[in-house]
Amino acid sequence: MSAGAHELFAGVFARGAVVAELNDAAWLRALLDVEVALARVLARAGIVPESSAEAISSAAVPANISLADLAAGSGAAGNPVPALLEQIEARLPLAAVGALHRGATSQDIIDSALMLLSKRALAHVLADLDSAAGAAARLASQHRGSVMLGRTLLQVAVPITFGLKAAGWLWSLDDARARLAAVRAQLPVQYGGAAGTLAPLADRGAEVAQLLAAELGLSEAVLPWHTLRAPLLELAAACGIAAAALGKLARDVTLLAQNELAELSESVADRRGGSSTMPHKQNPIGSIAALGCTRRVPGLIATLFAAAEQEHERAAGAWHAEWETLTQLLTLLGSAASWIAEVLAGLSVDSERMRANFAAALDLPLSERLRSELAALVGRAPADLLLRAAIERAQRERLQLREVLARDADLCQALRDAGIGAVQLARLFDPDAYLGSSSQFIDRALAFHAARSPR
Amino acid sequence: MSAGAHELFAGVFARGAVVAELNDAAWLRALLDVEVALARVLARAGIVPESSAEAISSAAVPANISLADLAAGSGAAGNPVPALLEQIEARLPLAAVGALHRGATSQDIIDSALMLLSKRALAHVLADLDSAAGAAARLASQHRGSVMLGRTLLQVAVPITFGLKAAGWLWSLDDARARLAAVRAQLPVQYGGAAGTLAPLADRGAEVAQLLAAELGLSEAVLPWHTLRAPLLELAAACGIAAAALGKLARDVTLLAQNELAELSESVADRRGGSSTMPHKQNPIGSIAALGCTRRVPGLIATLFAAAEQEHERAAGAWHAEWETLTQLLTLLGSAASWIAEVLAGLSVDSERMRANFAAALDLPLSERLRSELAALVGRAPADLLLRAAIERAQRERLQLREVLARDADLCQALRDAGIGAVQLARLFDPDAYLGSSSQFIDRALAFHAARSPR
Amino acid sequence: MSAGAHELFAGVFARGAVVAELNDAAWLRALLDVEVALARVLARAGIVPESSAEAISSAAVPANISLADLAAGSGAAGNPVPALLEQIEARLPLAAVGALHRGATSQDIIDSALMLLSKRALAHVLADLDSAAGAAARLASQHRGSVMLGRTLLQVAVPITFGLKAAGWLWSLDDARARLAAVRAQLPVQYGGAAGTLAPLADRGAEVAQLLAAELGLSEAVLPWHTLRAPLLELAAACGIAAAALGKLARDVTLLAQNELAELSESVADRRGGSSTMPHKQNPIGSIAALGCTRRVPGLIATLFAAAEQEHERAAGAWHAEWETLTQLLTLLGSAASWIAEVLAGLSVDSERMRANFAAALDLPLSERLRSELAALVGRAPADLLLRAAIERAQRERLQLREVLARDADLCQALRDAGIGAVQLARLFDPDAYLGSSSQFIDRALAFHAARSPR
Amino acid sequence: MSAGAHELFAGVFARGAVVAELNDAAWLRALLDVEVALARVLARAGIVPESSAEAISSAAVPANISLADLAAGSGAAGNPVPALLEQIEARLPLAAVGALHRGATSQDIIDSALMLLSKRALAHVLADLDSAAGAAARLASQHRGSVMLGRTLLQVAVPITFGLKAAGWLWSLDDARARLAAVRAQLPVQYGGAAGTLAPLADRGAEVAQLLAAELGLSEAVLPWHTLRAPLLELAAACGIAAAALGKLARDVTLLAQNELAELSESVADRRGGSSTMPHKQNPIGSIAALGCTRRVPGLIATLFAAAEQEHERAAGAWHAEWETLTQLLTLLGSAASWIAEVLAGLSVDSERMRANFAAALDLPLSERLRSELAALVGRAPADLLLRAAIERAQRERLQLREVLARDADLCQALRDAGIGAVQLARLFDPDAYLGSSSQFIDRALAFHAARSPR
Repeated sequence: MSAGAHELFAGVFARGAVVAELNDAAWLRALLDVEVALARVLARAGIVPESSAEAISSAAVPANISLADLAAGSGAAGNPVPALLEQIEARLPLAAVGALHRGATSQDIIDSALMLLSKRALAHVLADLDSAAGAAARLASQHRGSVMLGRTLLQVAVPITFGLKAAGWLWSLDDARARLAAVRAQLPVQYGGAAGTLAPLADRGAEVAQLLAAELGLSEAVLPWHTLRAPLLELAAACGIAAAALGKLARDVTLLAQNELAELSESVADRRGGSSTMPHKQNPIGSIAALGCTRRVPGLIATLFAAAEQEHERAAGAWHAEWETLTQLLTLLGSAASWIAEVLAGLSVDSERMRANFAAALDLPLSERLRSELAALVGRAPADLLLRAAIERAQRERLQLREVLARDADLCQALRDAGIGAVQLARLFDPDAYLGSSSQFIDRALAFHAARSPR
Repeated sequence: MSAGAHELFAGVFARGAVVAELNDAAWLRALLDVEVALARVLARAGIVPESSAEAISSAAVPANISLADLAAGSGAAGNPVPALLEQIEARLPLAAVGALHRGATSQDIIDSALMLLSKRALAHVLADLDSAAGAAARLASQHRGSVMLGRTLLQVAVPITFGLKAAGWLWSLDDARARLAAVRAQLPVQYGGAAGTLAPLADRGAEVAQLLAAELGLSEAVLPWHTLRAPLLELAAACGIAAAALGKLARDVTLLAQNELAELSESVADRRGGSSTMPHKQNPIGSIAALGCTRRVPGLIATLFAAAEQEHERAAGAWHAEWETLTQLLTLLGSAASWIAEVLAGLSVDSERMRANFAAALDLPLSERLRSELAALVGRAPADLLLRAAIERAQRERLQLREVLARDADLCQALRDAGIGAVQLARLFDPDAYLGSSSQFIDRALAFHAARSPR
Repeated sequence: MSAGAHELFAGVFARGAVVAELNDAAWLRALLDVEVALARVLARAGIVPESSAEAISSAAVPANISLADLAAGSGAAGNPVPALLEQIEARLPLAAVGALHRGATSQDIIDSALMLLSKRALAHVLADLDSAAGAAARLASQHRGSVMLGRTLLQVAVPITFGLKAAGWLWSLDDARARLAAVRAQLPVQYGGAAGTLAPLADRGAEVAQLLAAELGLSEAVLPWHTLRAPLLELAAACGIAAAALGKLARDVTLLAQNELAELSESVADRRGGSSTMPHKQNPIGSIAALGCTRRVPGLIATLFAAAEQEHERAAGAWHAEWETLTQLLTLLGSAASWIAEVLAGLSVDSERMRANFAAALDLPLSERLRSELAALVGRAPADLLLRAAIERAQRERLQLREVLARDADLCQALRDAGIGAVQLARLFDPDAYLGSSSQFIDRALAFHAARSPR
Repeated sequence: MSAGAHELFAGVFARGAVVAELNDAAWLRALLDVEVALARVLARAGIVPESSAEAISSAAVPANISLADLAAGSGAAGNPVPALLEQIEARLPLAAVGALHRGATSQDIIDSALMLLSKRALAHVLADLDSAAGAAARLASQHRGSVMLGRTLLQVAVPITFGLKAAGWLWSLDDARARLAAVRAQLPVQYGGAAGTLAPLADRGAEVAQLLAAELGLSEAVLPWHTLRAPLLELAAACGIAAAALGKLARDVTLLAQNELAELSESVADRRGGSSTMPHKQNPIGSIAALGCTRRVPGLIATLFAAAEQEHERAAGAWHAEWETLTQLLTLLGSAASWIAEVLAGLSVDSERMRANFAAALDLPLSERLRSELAALVGRAPADLLLRAAIERAQRERLQLREVLARDADLCQALRDAGIGAVQLARLFDPDAYLGSSSQFIDRALAFHAARSPR
């Protein structure tokens, strides 16, 4: 059974525990769960006989339902609920029929099922984000002192540590997880009847809605939100923000895994990422697959936001457009989270190569520092002139900047005059001495993580 | 087997003949077709033995392939082709293995298969658009004289005919069909090898690419387009424009089917569109479902356009994001086309109700005409004053504008003085006499249709 | 000065108080505010001399800056900050130059300015949402008993009240306002230097970042978020959800203002919404313009979510894509909020017409109730048969359902036998007696509103 | 005057000749051009006096129009045309007033102006694409033999030439240019009157529409396309495909300009791309800015496709959403084209570094070839085993693959036995001998270019 994905590509786009909560079977289960829960709370409220609720509980089980009939029925009615009811009714004693779907409209069932489905799927997403965050936290700690090139606009900038980079990933994973968990805890039940009045229940509708929410473990809405889609948009946005965090991380891995950089590589445990024709290939498939997932998210989010302009008491088309779109969004997010959890768990960090790449940058990543020190010494404009000339020579002759400066007799004298000897000069070129608040930022991300960890 | 849709909702979103060309089985068939075609043309070119090509033709059949293994393999390699090759190879004599997938990279197979799939799916889309256009042409002819309210900004404007509206639908369907057919005829094969040089074929790559295109009924590209995605974007855009035409039409039907307008209704042949709780309901399900499909299209298009920024010789993630997205776009377009073909075939047009609604508009839709005539008579400013007062009275007292004017003695005298008697005045209020070029436009749309019809 | 809108269309898309916080002047002000605030807190921390901070405060004022030079400079550097610094420096005493922009990178200034800008703009958006919610609350109270047709899938459904509809609008406005206010209160400062280490400040970076946040009235981030864009996405999503609430409301108004429904109309105070050629026209321009704004939002949101995949320590292009996109999103949201505040303040509700439209629906909106009552009486299947026949006759002969039933002698007898006399029967057709929990839901929305109102 | 961009960021996002065709002044000019052209052709058709047309030509000039009044008026009417007409009328002799805007509705003027604007703007876009294509053609020719690493999934693949890469860029630029030119040649006039009948012109509407198209240099539509938006979508799609071509190219440049690759760099003519704090920085600003533009395009395209679902005879909001969106799309495309034309003109190609990077890849890019040759020699499975071991050793010991193999005595003997001596073996490691059809593909792209060049 599909989760809106092709079986053929399922290894990439329908991956991890989340899939079993989003496929046809899961949808069916959720729809049935809502009908059964409704019958139960109606019985509890004394509105329908307990025996009817029991009959419905027995009849409304997946084994009794033909998916093919639902497929056909969804075409006839525009949604699968009427066909579902028909199949359940066929298994019910006549006396219980009136207790089924009482007060409800198809949208109540589908929206509530979608919230239930989302709640179940997000449990797995949160677990994978948690696992990824755990790995990121370990990387941030272990590589607190692993100096590497900071790169801006895809160009060498100033020194950072890999620990700081991992701390950034960590914070964004934890932040995404916290937001998703908060949204998950507030997913509301839908129960409003044909047009949001719950008229068939006379004045007891709101009460039953409250019971239903509790029964399903969902929250209660202020009023039926058939065409007021903020709950769904908030969920979609939280998914999108989590996907963005995963996508940024995956992009970093693919860039740092470029052969010319070779600072990171994915685990090669299972020969993953090979090519059928190029035996040397070791592609960072986990990150690439995660990007394949996350790149599909913004378009789905646009669909959901555009669909939120819904007419009157039920939308003609816009509502329908949400079902598979949200299910896919969750599937893609879950797959990406599963990929990244695995990528981080097996990530191979080559801190020697990071140092080597830094060294190959000819001290240029320290030009910012040098500029500031020289400006204090000789004035801003002369410092800029001097430095520009030195940088050009360093690049032209492939020399470290420190060597170029050492060859400038005037400058050396000026430095000595200013009391800057060899030791102080060497320190200017020491990246470990130019890391600013990196370590503090790592600590803050770790503290944020510790405060938000499930246990 | 899924076409990227849930079985549960297939009746709405995976409908019509197109689905069988876009599901897992169709994808598998297309992948195999490309591998087989490649082996055949390599044999024809004398590059591999004929016997190898025959062995590949025999081995590379769906019955030999396990979809579950492809699913697993797509996770390991990032795409299903290596696992597919493995399964084919297992069925090949050793001597034939070297002829399989010769010169090709996974992307060659997937991109070519996607083009093949699109070509096959579009045949059905074109047929449904053709059928819808045929129905629209009939409506345009039959209702050439069916006066109805033109409505702008959801407000009553001036008279039109339903024939003119149908002619607009017709043109947009024919235009969409022509564009899709043109794109379909140019879908290019992909064959470039690992990085677009076809180096394993020495200097014969371009020649084999040409043969492969011919064998598959695809066109030949100027060069491999692994990361130059214009062909795919052009296809996506043509699909999107067709979906937009269908969506506009469906929106019109839902609006004109509002109970308060009741000018159109969908066929009730099969009791479709009923509600499980409201027995009076007769929802225009075909149009609603079509809107459910078309509303999902712009987001998918955004995904494809955003994914077109592809790195170097193969993209890390962006390429992957295309596969299911394009397949879904085609599925949704095909479903919408199927829905609309059926909607138009069974559309019930209540031209009496159109006239009645027109009459209920108190002659106001003719105020534009009246203003122009009165301005010529009494000057623009006085005409505006007079007309505004008359319109306010008409609305306040629910009188036809003609009655209001008839009660204005001064105006009547002025009209008589200007030689405008009762007959001429009546004509000013005759919507059939204020249809301008409607009939000509209908003729032009019909001529455009006739010129573009398949036969 | 533009807010990313054409002057020509400013009346539609750049409306309300928000515009003055989002145009070029506002951007310039915000950029300067950040540079000045940074200098001040550096002085407070004893890192730069107080006199330098004072000099920067005096020099970094809009009057000293040429916008044209910034425009040119943004082309040369890829952003306007270097050119801004050059212009400020030109006005600074040499001694103060070193205190300017200390530790910062261009992105620190632009991101912080964007947060500042957003904070200022959102104040106006919140005020307009507040005003709109106030009007919606009044409508919900006043029209608690105004029965109207509930409409689902653009078809007549069951009775609701206009008060309930307004309560739905109210909740969605209040919910959007609360979310935006929460996000607004957490907008973080950006201050990380070239690659997020704040190395030029040695170990005092985090401390200065905290001071800077306080000085600007922004929150402090866990660490620099140069390429971790969750804060921006959360803001964008909250804007999008608010825009969706406004769009849904505007769509309802345009639909209910259709001449054939005529249940709502916008204020005609200023002759707004007239046509240049059709004197009878009174378009609901406020709602149409609001829709013009809100329809542009989902695409911008997709852009921002797609742009969140940012490379390394600063993105090459993706970051740049955010600046105008977010500014436009805020402008469009602000304009839509301004439109809807005005629309609701002047909304004309025709509750008589609502009743009349209800009456014109031939009692069909009560068929749900009738079905349930009849099923209890005669059994479900017979009730359905009977009712279907009655409905068909009602529609065919344009009779109220109650009249059709009254003409069915057998049914009348059965009803009498069941003790259902004329009074009880009449009550079944009384929409006021079939409103369920409407009043409770209105109360809940009003309570939610009261609890969240600014005062 | 703005082109929907902030002055502050104009250097990045509103660049090149295109801007002057898309700003407020250009919009105003286009609106006036349409009104004047309409008056002229009405005179030519004998429908209005020649003198009226002349009066309109004299009055309808930019100098007579207050943009601020249009801004205000666009708020009152929902679009600027009524306010524009008011200002023109104020300058007209009374006798000429009736000839102004005859038969037209506001949408006729705005849509036709938008087509005119697009036509004018595209002339500059085409010129920039042409210039970029010219530069790409030169690069393709000059670097036909410049061997470099082909890179797939951001990993080293097989040898290509920079000429082949440039040929790919070239084809995509030429293809985009050809598509845009074709769309530009077919941009249709809009002229349908209030609801598409042109009733005020009696039976002469279609004739006048034809004259108007000719007068404005636009094409004639089959019928008014007020709510049939295919022409606009086709334009948007062609713009989007061109933007995608530019974005891909810019992405390649930023990746190849990474310091660790350093194969390409942008011209440093004007010190562009420097950093305010890091003196060594030389960012590829042209490509980055182009990406900043192109990244904003897919969202705008989604907006336009979503807006194409337009109601009845004029849309309430969806139409309005198009104006600035399309103008921005053109502005961003034009800016990106201008950036890339400049980038390619000044692109610095370091073919020695390309060779050096190739050499640093340890012969691995030739493993595909080697595998095929060895398989022929020793069988597929043994070849794979042997090669995998050799690759691992090459990577571990940082040896060229050829050296590893030379140290394998058994293999050397086997090769010698098979008649493969040192010369033949060396040839297997010569990337120039493994370029397949590269040169042919370059020739085809050059031929495609020559055939499509303006002259």
